[in-house]
Parts: sequence; structure tokens; C-alpha cells
Amino acid sequence: MLRIRRLPIDTYPENTAFLLRHANGYSAEQFQALRKIRVTGGSSEILATLALVDDEGIIGHGEIGLGEQAYRRLNLSEGTEVEIAQARPPASLDYVRRKIDGDTLGEAEVGAIIGDIAAHRYSPMEIAAFLVACAGFMSTPETLALTRAMVNVGNRLKWNAPLVVDKHCIGGIPGNRTSMIVVPIVAAHGLICPKTSSRAITSPCGTADVMEVLAEVNLSAEKMAEIVAKEHAVLAWGGRVNLSPADDVLISVERPLRLDTFEQMVASIISKKVAAGSTHLVIDIPVGPTAKVRSQNDAVRLRKLFEYVARHMGLVTKIVFTDGSQPVGRGVGPVLEARDVLAVLRNEPDAPEDLRDHAVALAGHVLDFDPAIEGGKGYSRALELLASGEALAAMERIIEAQGRKPAMPELGGFQHEVKAHRSGRIVAIDCERIAKVARQAGAPMDQGAGLYLMHKIGEQVSKGDTLYRIYAGSQAGLGFGCDCAEENSGYEIG
Amino acid sequence: MLRIRRLPIDTYPENTAFLLRHANGYSAEQFQALRKIRVTGGSSEILATLALVDDEGIIGHGEIGLGEQAYRRLNLSEGTEVEIAQARPPASLDYVRRKIDGDTLGEAEVGAIIGDIAAHRYSPMEIAAFLVACAGFMSTPETLALTRAMVNVGNRLKWNAPLVVDKHCIGGIPGNRTSMIVVPIVAAHGLICPKTSSRAITSPCGTADVMEVLAEVNLSAEKMAEIVAKEHAVLAWGGRVNLSPADDVLISVERPLRLDTFEQMVASIISKKVAAGSTHLVIDIPVGPTAKVRSQNDAVRLRKLFEYVARHMGLVTKIVFTDGSQPVGRGVGPVLEARDVLAVLRNEPDAPEDLRDHAVALAGHVLDFDPAIEGGKGYSRALELLASGEALAAMERIIEAQGRKPAMPELGGFQHEVKAHRSGRIVAIDCERIAKVARQAGAPMDQGAGLYLMHKIGEQVSKGDTLYRIYAGSQAGLGFGCDCAEENSGYEIG
Repeated sequence: MLRIRRLPIDTYPENTAFLLRHANGYSAEQFQALRKIRVTGGSSEILATLALVDDEGIIGHGEIGLGEQAYRRLNLSEGTEVEIAQARPPASLDYVRRKIDGDTLGEAEVGAIIGDIAAHRYSPMEIAAFLVACAGFMSTPETLALTRAMVNVGNRLKWNAPLVVDKHCIGGIPGNRTSMIVVPIVAAHGLICPKTSSRAITSPCGTADVMEVLAEVNLSAEKMAEIVAKEHAVLAWGGRVNLSPADDVLISVERPLRLDTFEQMVASIISKKVAAGSTHLVIDIPVGPTAKVRSQNDAVRLRKLFEYVARHMGLVTKIVFTDGSQPVGRGVGPVLEARDVLAVLRNEPDAPEDLRDHAVALAGHVLDFDPAIEGGKGYSRALELLASGEALAAMERIIEAQGRKPAMPELGGFQHEVKAHRSGRIVAIDCERIAKVARQAGAPMDQGAGLYLMHKIGEQVSKGDTLYRIYAGSQAGLGFGCDCAEENSGYEIG
Repeated sequence: MLRIRRLPIDTYPENTAFLLRHANGYSAEQFQALRKIRVTGGSSEILATLALVDDEGIIGHGEIGLGEQAYRRLNLSEGTEVEIAQARPPASLDYVRRKIDGDTLGEAEVGAIIGDIAAHRYSPMEIAAFLVACAGFMSTPETLALTRAMVNVGNRLKWNAPLVVDKHCIGGIPGNRTSMIVVPIVAAHGLICPKTSSRAITSPCGTADVMEVLAEVNLSAEKMAEIVAKEHAVLAWGGRVNLSPADDVLISVERPLRLDTFEQMVASIISKKVAAGSTHLVIDIPVGPTAKVRSQNDAVRLRKLFEYVARHMGLVTKIVFTDGSQPVGRGVGPVLEARDVLAVLRNEPDAPEDLRDHAVALAGHVLDFDPAIEGGKGYSRALELLASGEALAAMERIIEAQGRKPAMPELGGFQHEVKAHRSGRIVAIDCERIAKVARQAGAPMDQGAGLYLMHKIGEQVSKGDTLYRIYAGSQAGLGFGCDCAEENSGYEIG
């Protein structure tokens, strides 16, 4: 028996336990070679990775140290006596092994895997094994089972409304910050739109990162309900409300591995929307040579997968294919994108047209869900709400309700202009490369970092013209961004 | 800039760095969300997982704590100033992603992946992604490329002899401890046989675990050379001499995931044999309904893969299919298997016949590599060396040279007899189940734990006869073993 000692060490996302290497009456090293131990006290039990300590100042004889995650999840107080044993791997790992061998899994098996993942019984390597096996092949019913399992293990928000709308883009296009325009338009119209967004996964920023420049986004479910009751809509960070905890764990592995399959995408998006209580959803699929979806065939395959899963989950969807040939708007990065969004909402004359057009079209599709709107009139209604300033007013109320940030963070003080190396017409802009330059410059961690695009596809430039300006908050960030742009600016001049 | 502080925390196999959560002038949490940081000082650099500390007693302002692995691999002294940055993922991860997408990789790409893995630049989840992608599909040239890459990143032993023989079994059959009989026979004949073995991966014990009961196995390359010069052979643990460090890293992930594909098996075995300086190799492939290879088709596929890779690596092989329908010998577990081996070498009348026959046959194949032996006479020569006691004498000299253990560890004091639930003839014994019972009872960590089989296939038993005896060093171990045997004893009585 070992006594629990809480160690102030945060080993996100894993549980870690700490033992003295010697003098506990068993070979700690042999436990460690097995990678995981089971810690049991009463009816509480966790699996944890084992670290060995050679200093009795950190952990004493007869003690087991628990890092923050392990301590919180075991949920027993310091000094409680616990036992440790070689962890038996979660039973559902047998299903993962079958998936690796090429089997197709049933609903109960997928449910068991997701239950164990949500309960933090899988190590990152086991999660990676599951995800990569699924990336090899995953059937449509498996994708549905995954979606359902992810909904079942998380919270669900409830709204007293027959129509709860949402809009989601699959991502991949820098600057494509339409949600922050669509949501206030829809709110101004009076539909319920409790939007939860993610932070950047592999991109320079997510909607939550951009909204955070203007307002608090770390909102509880209660606070969200309060804001929606008053303003019809909210733009919150989804991570706080634990809508799909299994998906959050999966993403913590997908992100560093940059895994992004259609099946995982559909399960992730649909599960979060169902958990958020949405009834009607517009999904934006940008299609372009450097977008996530690169051909019409792929777009149709993805559309059908969304439709199948959403229908079986009771969610009404409208799938929209949009132009994903280049970044949308001018800014890429939290502050720069927030500026673009505000320019559109304020109807400023130099607001990026493509961002405005794109957002209004999507808002129109959302408004078309409203039975009170005459068929096909969603678009003109959206345009009207934007032009009249009603959308801006709604946005200001939402910002106020969430908690307005005292001042927008400054743009990065370290800047560099990337020039055209020849004269000609811009024929292509590589979305992946633009995203990479912005990330290297520091976005989204550095809110003022990113790019501002001076020219878009179809425009004529002369040699030496500035294609875009890189912003960074540090010399190092600017250096990384410039190196990346130097290697390949992402612009093709024909 | 942060000053290195060495923390006495062993986070095998990963590098871990520790930072105060607050007060270092940047957001440590955002670094942590990225999972890995790069620590750079002068020309030294490592990637490390980041743990956040909330106690200045463990790590102070302006300091970065390095766990044992990270400290050793960065190889800079305490107090040295280092920089940290968001880790750029190893470039070779792009190839892993291509492999996940179904591509076939070339030699340079596989080489880059293995180089990064051997340099500990991959996290376990990244290694898992590579292994699972390879488990999905791997071409024969990819397997060869993997083998060559694994040899290139490790040490290579050199022997001044035209003929350096070895023998390897692919495993999966409990009790099949033939190496400890084959090696002394071959040594007695005078061939050079510097055998390196592994510890148990998924089995109740490996040859290194069993040999360790009798002699020291943790030998340096120099010590091995010294012993081989005198005794022609050695039975050492391969982990010490760093023959295939990339394979050791891969195995640290394969083991908990219980991944065991033919391709990884061939690359692992052939790379280690080439690195150990072998020129001629006998490979034992047991075939049986609960063995690793379960059909003649699979056996032939595996044989061809071994032959292709070995030939291109310049290694002469003889592949032998053997009876893998049940455990070999009577004992399963380090001490119990060592007893069986000694009984055979000592020509004791009750020595397990199947173990002796199996070992002599394999030794005969090894001796057939000797040009001085008349065609087909290897078997009779092996039998002669065993029967005459020359093999036993060679084993005693090898044990003496490696460092004889003062006394064999005792058999586990907690015992339980598993009885036949009906009368009849034994028609099958499940190798996987027998291995599992032995592991649950504590083998190999508990050297005296394991099973002793009283009956084998074809024998007649009466209801209540003892099928096997479980040994464990603790009541808990015995309990786990008995539970496992209770669920399924592994014996089928017809």
C-alpha cells in the first residue's frame, strides 16, 4: 500500500504517477517498462504512466506521487492508501487491434473504444494506433457509430426552441472567418444560434482564437444559456463545455500527427453539433487545389458522408461547396482576422469583398431554415441585416454579453514584406503555405502575428510589389516566418 | 534563456522537460498544448515533452528542468543556458503521413524515419502512427529498406572469422528455450556463435531472462568479444550492445500495443543479426493453431520474406518450420525453463524429450553450415556433442565466463494445481493462454513464477488429474494466474 501525495506537476493530457526508484519492495523499473500502471483505492481507479524518482525530496518511501491530471481523475485525497499493479490494458484495445488487422467494427465495439478514450484509459500511442487504423479504412456505419459514441460520453446542451441553427466550415482556408459575420446576422434576425468553436488545430487560428481578441470566449454552459436567452446567439469556445470530451482527446493526438480524415472530421463536427443542441446546420466545404477538399469527387463523397451521419443523428443539414482556391479576406492571424471581420460588419468601403460575399451567402442558407422566410429569400434578408447595421449591433451586444476585451492586442511589431520576384498575373495562392507562414510567425499563440495579403488571384503585379506583409511579436517569430516565405511564398505569378 | 537543472526523474523512454507554469515570460500552457518543445544549447538539441510545475521547490524561475533521459541526451551540464521553442516536427513525419495515406516509401524516406526514431525525435504516438501505418501494408522492398536503415543507425559487432553462426526463433511457443542448448552444442564443435537475445516482449520470458537465472547477461561488446575468443560463444542480452537502437525504440511501442507483423519481425531479426556480425543464420518458425504462424501459407510467406531480406543483406539463412502446436518442454518461466535446459544438457532421464529433439535438430542445421562437416551429418554431430557431455561442459564454461550467478532463484512459493475437468485425451494446448497464465502469475519479472506442465498433447488424463502447476512469488500473482487459468486453462480434452 502506498500513500497518495499530490505533486504540483501538470502532465497534460496524460496521467502520470511518480515512484521512488528503489525501496518500495518491488522493482519499479520493471513496472515502468510496462508503460502503464493501475492505481486503485476503494472503488476509484486510474491508469497512469510511471515516472521514477531518485530524490526523496520529491517523493518519499511508501508514497506514490500523482501529477495534476492523475490526482484529479483518481479523485481521492492526499494520504489515502492505494495499491498499484501492472495495468491490464483496456479491454477495448482488442477491438483496436482488430481494426488494425482490417476488420470493420460494430457499434458496441466503437462505443467501448470511445468510452475508454473519454475516461482517459488510452495512452497517446494507443489513441494514435486507433486513429491511424481508422485512417486506413473506415466504413460509413463505423463513422456513424463513432459519432454516436462521442455524443454519448459528453455533455449535451438543451435549448427551448424548435429551431436551433448553426454553421460550420471544415476549415483549411486561411482568413475564412465567416462565423463571426454569419452569427450576428442570424442573431439579428432572431434565430437561436449558440455557436461553439474550436481553437486552431493545424491552422493559424480558429474562430475561438479570433473571437477572443474581442471578447471572453471561455464561457460556462450556464453563461452561454444566459447570453443566448438575451441575444439569441453566442460565440464561445467549445472546449469549456465538454461537449465531446472523447473528440477533444482524439484531437490532442490528431493535431501533432496532422491527421485529418473525412471520417474523423464528420464524426467530430456532427457529434459536437448534436451535443450543442443544434437542429439545423449549414456546412461549408471549400473546394480548391490547396484546400482540404481538392476535387469535386472528394467534395461529393464528403457531402454524402455528412448527410448520412447527420440524418441518422437527427440533424437537418445543408451542405454548401464554396470557392477554396485561395485565402478569404486579407488578414491571417487572430488580430488581423478580427480586423477584417469588423470591417465587414461596419460596412467599411475597403472591407474584404470575398469575406463579405461568402459570409452573406452562408447566412442566407442559415436563414432559409426559418419557416417564416419565403423560399429563397434568405440571402436578401442576410444582406439587408448586414447593410442596415443590425448585424453589427447584434455583434456588439454579443461581445458586451460575453465580456468585452479592454483593447484589441497590437499587431506584431516585427514586420517584413514579401515581394513579387517577377511581373505578371497572380494565378494561384497556396492555402497551406500561407497558413504555414502565419503559424511560423507565431499565430495563434502570438495574437498579433500573421499575414496581411495585398494581392489576390487574378490581380496584376510588377516585380518588387509587396505580395503580403508578415507580422510577428518577436524577432525569432519573424525569422521563422520569413524563412518559410523565402522557401516558398505560396504565390504563383504567371 | 533558461538555465538547465537536472531533475532526478526518469521518464523512460521519453524526454521530458519541466517548466514553471507562470513567470517565465511566455505562456507555458500554450507550449504544452503543442506537446513537444525543442531545447537548444550551442549545437546540442533535443525534442522533449513538456510538464508544467506549480512549485518553485521543484523548479525555479529562469530554469528548465530536464528529466534523466532529456538530460543525458542533451548532454550539457547543469546551469548551461538553453533556449526553448515550439518544436518543429521531424521532417520525416511527412513520410509517415504519406504512408498513412497508402503510399509506398523509398529507401531514403524509410532511412530518414528510422534516423529520427533512433535519435529519439519521435514521440510514442508518432512511432505508433508509423507502426500501424506499416501494419496496414508494407512492401517487400520497404521491409528491406527498414532492415538496412535499422542496421545503419546502430553499432555493428565484428568477428575475425569467415563463419559466424546464429540461430533465432520467431517466438510464440512457451518453454521453447532451444538457444541455450543449441549454442553450447555449436560452441563445443568450435563454431563462432556470439548470440544476443532479447528479454520477453509479449511472452512470459525471453532467452535473456532465462540465461540470467544462471549467469550475467548484461555484457559489454568488449566482454562479449573476450568470451567468444575463449569459448567460441556467448549468450548475452542484446539490449546492452545497442545493436539496433531504432528497433529497441520501435519495440517499446510494439510491446504495449501488441503489434507483431511479419514485416516488423523480419526487419527486427535480420537487422539485429547483421549488426551482431552473423554470416549464417538458422531461423526457427514454429507453425501451429495458436502459434504466431498458423498456416502453411503464412509460413511460406514469412519464409520468403526472411529469405529476400536476408539475401539482400548478405546473410545466409536456413529457414526451418517446426511443430508449434503446443508448448515445448515442461517449464514456462525463467527458473522453470532454466531447469528444463539444464536437464537436457545433463542428459537426465526425465529431461523433456521434445525440447531436446527440437534443439538437436536446430543445432544440426547450424552445424551443417560448417564446410568441414559432411553433407547431412550436422544432426548426428549435434547429438554426439550433447550425449557426450561436451555441450554441457561448453555451457559451464560460458556461464563461468559471463559470471555465474551464486544460486538459482527459488521457485515461487505460492502454488496451485490446475486439474482436468473431465477424463479423456488431451487434443490441444493453447500457447497464447499458457503464456498468459504464466505472465499473470508474474513471469518474467518474478523469476520463480510460471507453470510446470504435467501433460502434453496425446496423453490420456482422468478427471481431477493435474494438468499443470502454477508457481508465483506472491499471493496476488498466484491469484491473477489462477483467475486466468480458471477462465480458460488452455487445455482441450477430447
